This record gives sequence, structure tokens and C-alpha cells, in this order.
Amino acid sequence: MTASPYLHRFGEAQVTVLDTDGRPLADRDVVVEQRSHAFGFGNIGFDFVPVANEEPAAVTGQEDLWFDVFNTATLPFYWSLFEPERDRPDTGRLHRAARWFTDRGARVKGHPLVWHTLAPDWLRRLSTDEVEAVVRARIRREVTGFADVVHSWDAINEVVIMPVFRNEEHPNAITRLARERGRIATVRLAFEEARAADPTATLLLNDFDMSTAYECLIEGVLEAGIRIDAIGLQSHMHQGYWGEDRTLAVLDRFARYGLPLHMTETTLVSGHLMPPEIDDLNDYQIPSWPTTPEGEQRQADEITRHYRTLLGHPAVQAITYWGFTDHDAWLGAPAGVVRADGTPKPAYHALRDLVKGEWWLPPTTLRTDHAGRVEIRGFLGDYRLSHDGRRASFALTAAGRLVQLEGLLR
Amino acid sequence: MTASPYLHRFGEAQVTVLDTDGRPLADRDVVVEQRSHAFGFGNIGFDFVPVANEEPAAVTGQEDLWFDVFNTATLPFYWSLFEPERDRPDTGRLHRAARWFTDRGARVKGHPLVWHTLAPDWLRRLSTDEVEAVVRARIRREVTGFADVVHSWDAINEVVIMPVFRNEEHPNAITRLARERGRIATVRLAFEEARAADPTATLLLNDFDMSTAYECLIEGVLEAGIRIDAIGLQSHMHQGYWGEDRTLAVLDRFARYGLPLHMTETTLVSGHLMPPEIDDLNDYQIPSWPTTPEGEQRQADEITRHYRTLLGHPAVQAITYWGFTDHDAWLGAPAGVVRADGTPKPAYHALRDLVKGEWWLPPTTLRTDHAGRVEIRGFLGDYRLSHDGRRASFALTAAGRLVQLEGLLR
Repeated sequence: MTASPYLHRFGEAQVTVLDTDGRPLADRDVVVEQRSHAFGFGNIGFDFVPVANEEPAAVTGQEDLWFDVFNTATLPFYWSLFEPERDRPDTGRLHRAARWFTDRGARVKGHPLVWHTLAPDWLRRLSTDEVEAVVRARIRREVTGFADVVHSWDAINEVVIMPVFRNEEHPNAITRLARERGRIATVRLAFEEARAADPTATLLLNDFDMSTAYECLIEGVLEAGIRIDAIGLQSHMHQGYWGEDRTLAVLDRFARYGLPLHMTETTLVSGHLMPPEIDDLNDYQIPSWPTTPEGEQRQADEITRHYRTLLGHPAVQAITYWGFTDHDAWLGAPAGVVRADGTPKPAYHALRDLVKGEWWLPPTTLRTDHAGRVEIRGFLGDYRLSHDGRRASFALTAAGRLVQLEGLLR
Repeated sequence: MTASPYLHRFGEAQVTVLDTDGRPLADRDVVVEQRSHAFGFGNIGFDFVPVANEEPAAVTGQEDLWFDVFNTATLPFYWSLFEPERDRPDTGRLHRAARWFTDRGARVKGHPLVWHTLAPDWLRRLSTDEVEAVVRARIRREVTGFADVVHSWDAINEVVIMPVFRNEEHPNAITRLARERGRIATVRLAFEEARAADPTATLLLNDFDMSTAYECLIEGVLEAGIRIDAIGLQSHMHQGYWGEDRTLAVLDRFARYGLPLHMTETTLVSGHLMPPEIDDLNDYQIPSWPTTPEGEQRQADEITRHYRTLLGHPAVQAITYWGFTDHDAWLGAPAGVVRADGTPKPAYHALRDLVKGEWWLPPTTLRTDHAGRVEIRGFLGDYRLSHDGRRASFALTAAGRLVQLEGLLR
């Protein structure tokens, strides 16, 4: 295990098992098992919003598939869908969905607070000063209103292209705001409002642009003194898997800033690939994009390789796979890990084999020493120790050093 | 003339012509003629450095061709060539070259103070702190030492790629500096030192990257409070003329920042085009790249179209064409306006027809009114008025409003 590429993900603890009376439980068998990953294994939770609201849903019955692999749900706060009519936001429904996930042990991330795409139509009519005021109010409202259930936000999305975005018939108001105020001023207002509304939230700058442009933006934002908690890197690979070399090169370039990297939108299709000449993925509209047996094998292979690469890089703190079911998937692409009929694809099993297999400590019997101690090494996360029907919990929270813990059986 | 696309370049003056005794020269014919352009029509002056130093030179005898069209010379301060051995800079020779140009009425620009390419080998051995100190000292030395003749500098060149530049066998020290300190800190040190050494100099940020990356860099630099006097946009079109639409789109994007735009490195070849798949132009090494009759006609047509587009945009303040003679030209490309044998190409004549033809007021006879006044409209620049062997000088310095001037004949 010492040669593992994941050493930076391992915690080590010497746990003194204490019996119900507080005395060390010497020379006994105890069972240790992992209960959760600290690492963010995310997926979109969009499909379960109706489930949580007791509405008809395509994914009813597939809840266990989701929760067995994923621990972080990204929920949609696309403004034009969330608040199509001004001052009538879909807060209740989204809040129930977020609560549904947290009740089941998952963390929830909100996506996105500011974005030019899916900006509401009614915003166009406002002056730029008014747009800024309304954007600020919307950020405050969402971050405050969901502070009990959403602890992570894409504060602003795709700022590199934001002020020069042209792929739309009627120019949107967020592009206007970013063009008139500048990129950094727009980033500042997003983070400033979100931070003030929930100082404990994890706030991301998120982009699909992996070029030097994003580096330049990040350097400008940091130089301007704006605190960002993580750098979000999208990776919709509808046009083909990046491969290890490109992935590592991207990670190294963005790891330079000393901030955690979140792979926020990771997609690998299990059908044919989108042609390379498509620039804006949204422009690829086809009547049918089927999943295929060959595509599913390729997707399973690539998802394994990609997750290994990402977990192997110390800067990566979370991965959100962008697709649970193929039913109603973005662009109609077979990007899910579950087919439209609800059956898991090979990629689902491949991912589970990592998250709950290779990277997971199953129930394991250990013998305490004369002082009641056992040593445990495993992926950072929550663990449970049991003996004779009683249990103790502990967590491995820091990599790279042996910590001393106590586990009181109850 | 009111429909001219160059109205923003015109000055208008009502000049009261005063006779030697100071009284208005009423009802007489005077001849008015333009003497110079305020607009920077630049070219490289590299080829004339030996001429100015009385060394053998390929362009001896071609001086008049240069000065008849161009008014601004860019001189090479490539560090590894300027100071191949530490502390033995080529100051005297370059200073004589700069003086040679200013003596003949041209302005001189220095290129570049900081750049990763052609950084001296001896720099590699230094620690990053030492590199910074030496870079600062070099900037101070050049800007101070040339303050009498060089009033404009590319303070720093190609910062977008600088920290991630890889196209070299041995990593250079400027790339290391930019990677460790960040792009904006590196830009800051360049401008800070140059500004301190000559507060009156025009200092440029210069890049070939016309993507959103350069926008993001500029926004970060401005947000950081670094004062830049002009944005330099390279446009080496070895792979083909951009065309009007692309050119205007680039100009509009970079004009947003309210700073003057300098087209710092403009090239159009008069032979075959470099293949589009070449990424770094320096990678295209071929034994021979001849100028051709068809290529020369295309170059002449394109240079006219390009200069019309650039002069038509109010933000553009200067253009430096990157190539005088084809002799020893960069990449061996037939980019000059003069052939290797010293004869002017059609592009030379085309450019002269604009600069000294369509955009120039030739000697023109005007009649003063009863108060000795004549009205003149022309491209911003210096003008001369003459009558009966005596002369008066005046300048059109501001576009868009009629100014009152006096011209005392001497």
C-alpha cells in the first residue's frame, strides 16, 4: 500500500477502543468499517427534484443507485428556470429537494448563482445598475434561504466568455453587466454577496475554459483580493476523453494557485462522440444519441482511468459527474451512468468498484492490543468500529500523519 | 469629405496668417502643406542599426524609402543579443542607432524590456529573487540610458504565455519568474521600474494572443491598479490576412478598456502562406520562402485594406509594420515592403499612396480672407504655411473641433 498513488488521501489513526465503562478494551476482536468518503464524489441531483417533491419522476426507484456511489448532489439554480416570473422563485420545491438529499446523508451544492446562460428574460429590460442590484439580491436570497441545506455554491459560472458571449439571438443582461463592469468586478460582486450571506459556505469560481484565459482570470481575481475557496474545472468530454496526459497538464496548471480543484462537471458519453468541430456544445442538436454496447465499455474504461487520474492528484478535492440517468439528459447525450430504462451501465459498476471497493475499507476484523489499541489506515472519511453489538464512530480527517483517537463503545 | 471614415483623425484650424510685422496678411495666396503625421506609422529599424554605426549593411542606400513612409522606428533590445555577456550591454551601438533615427525626424520605440524568449542564458543560473533584481536593474538601465532618444517601450511582451511557455529545450528564467510570482506581479515590476526610470515614456503591454486570455490579463492588470499607456496587439499574418471583420472584432474587444491600441507587429507576406496548423510561428523553418509576383499583388491589396481598417477605428493610435526589407527577415519570410535587392514592392507604393497621398495634405494654395485667415482640415500632424519665401509652422493636435491658430511668417 505504500506505493499507492493515493497516499495523500489516506488518514492513519491509532484508535484506543474504550468499553462502555471507559476502560480500554484489550485483546479483543473489533470490526472496523468505512461509512463515508470525505472526498466529494458528486453527481447532479436534478432528476430527483420531482422525487423529493412527490411528483411523477423518471428515476423513481433508482434512489439507492445514486446514494450507493455519490455523496454530493448538485442542484439546479438556473435563474430563468428558478424564477421565470420575477419575484416568484421556485424556492420551496428546491428546498425540499435539498433537504431530501441531506436527510439521506448527502451534501448539496447549488449551481450557479450568476451565469449569462439561462439568465431570465425579464432581466433584459433593466438598466445595468438595476441588473447589478437584482443579481446581488438574488444571491443573498438563495444563499441565505438555503444556508441550512446548501453549503457549497458555484458563485459564478463561465466568466471568461461571459462579457463576449454571442451565441444567442437576444443579448442577455448578465453579459451586459460583465462587459460594462468588467470580469473581475462581476466576480467580486458574486463572491462578496454570497460570502456575506453565508460566511461558512464553500464558494467556487467555475469555468469550462481550460486555456490560459482562465489562468489569467484567476490571477486577476486573486490579485484583486477576492477570496475563492475552490477552482471549478468543467470537463464535459462529449467530444472524447482527454486522456491522462492532458488531464494532468490541466490539473498542474490550475494547482499552481494553491487552491483546491473541483472537477465540477465531468461527462463521458457511452455512445458516438460529438464531432470535434463543434465549438459550443449546445449547438449539437440531434434527434437521437443512443447508448451503445461499445460506447458503454469505452465509458466504463474511461471513467475508471479518469477518476484514478483525478484522485491521484493531491489538489483535487471533489468530482461531480454530470449525469445520472440518460433520461432527459443534457443534449440528449448518453452521458449517464444509468440507462434511460433505469439499469446501471458498466460505468456505474466501474465507479462503484472504485468508490466502494478499491478506495473503501469494508468491515474488517482487527485485534486490539494490550492497551486496547488498533491501527487503521484508509481514505479520509467517517468510520465505525463495533464490538459485541456496540459501536463507536471516528473520522480520519487529515492525511499524512498518525493521529491518536479514542472510540467509546456505546 | 464629411463621409470620410477617418473624421476622428482630422484636425480643423482657422489660421490667422501674420506677416513678419505681426499684422494679418489679408487677401493673399499662401501655400499650406503637411509636414508630418501625428499617427504612428512605424516599421522596424533593425536593418539600419549597422548603417547608423557605419558598419556594412544590406540596406545602405535605402534610407529614403524608409523615411518617406515611416515616422517611428522600433529598435531591438532583445536581452540575449543586447547583453550576451553579463554587464557588457550593447548600449553604445543601440544608442547611436536611436540617435540616427531621431536626427532624421523619426520617433523611436524600444522592444522589449521583459520577454521570456531571447532571455540571456546567464540568467538561468540565478535564483528567482536574483532574476527579479537583475530584470529590474536592466529595465532601469535601458530606460534611463535611452531616455533622450527612446520615448516608448514594450515594457513587457507576451505575458499570457510567459509562465507556461514550453517551446524550448532549457527553461528560461523569465518564464520561471512569471510562474513563481504570477503574471500580474511580473507585469507590475516591469511597469513600475520603467515608469520610475522615465515617467514621461509611453509604456505598452504587448501580446500576440488575441483571445479572451489577453482580455482577462488586461482586466487583472487594470484592476491591480497598474497604469499602462497603450495596449499592444501583434498581428503577424504569416498564415494569412485576418480580413476586415476579424480585425474590427479584435479592435472592438480591446478598445473596451478605453486605452489606445497600438498594432505593434503587423506582417503580411508577399509569398506563399505559412500552413494554418503551425502553432508557434518560430517552428516554421524552411530553406527558402520567395517573394512572388502574385504574392506581392496580394500583399499590396491586403496592406491597403488593413491600414484602412485600422485608421478607420478611433482607438488605434499607431501601427508598426514588422518588416522593411526581405533581406535577413524574421523566419526568412517575404514580409518586407522592400525586396532583398532593395527595390520597393507594390505594398510599399500602396502604403505610400495612403500615408503620403490620400491621408496627406500636399502643397495647396489657399487665399487668406480680409482678416488674413485660412481654414485647414487635415490629418493630425505638423503643417507648414508659406508665402513669398517666408514660412510659418503650426500643428493640428486635436480632432473634432475647430481651433484658432496664428501663423507668424518668418
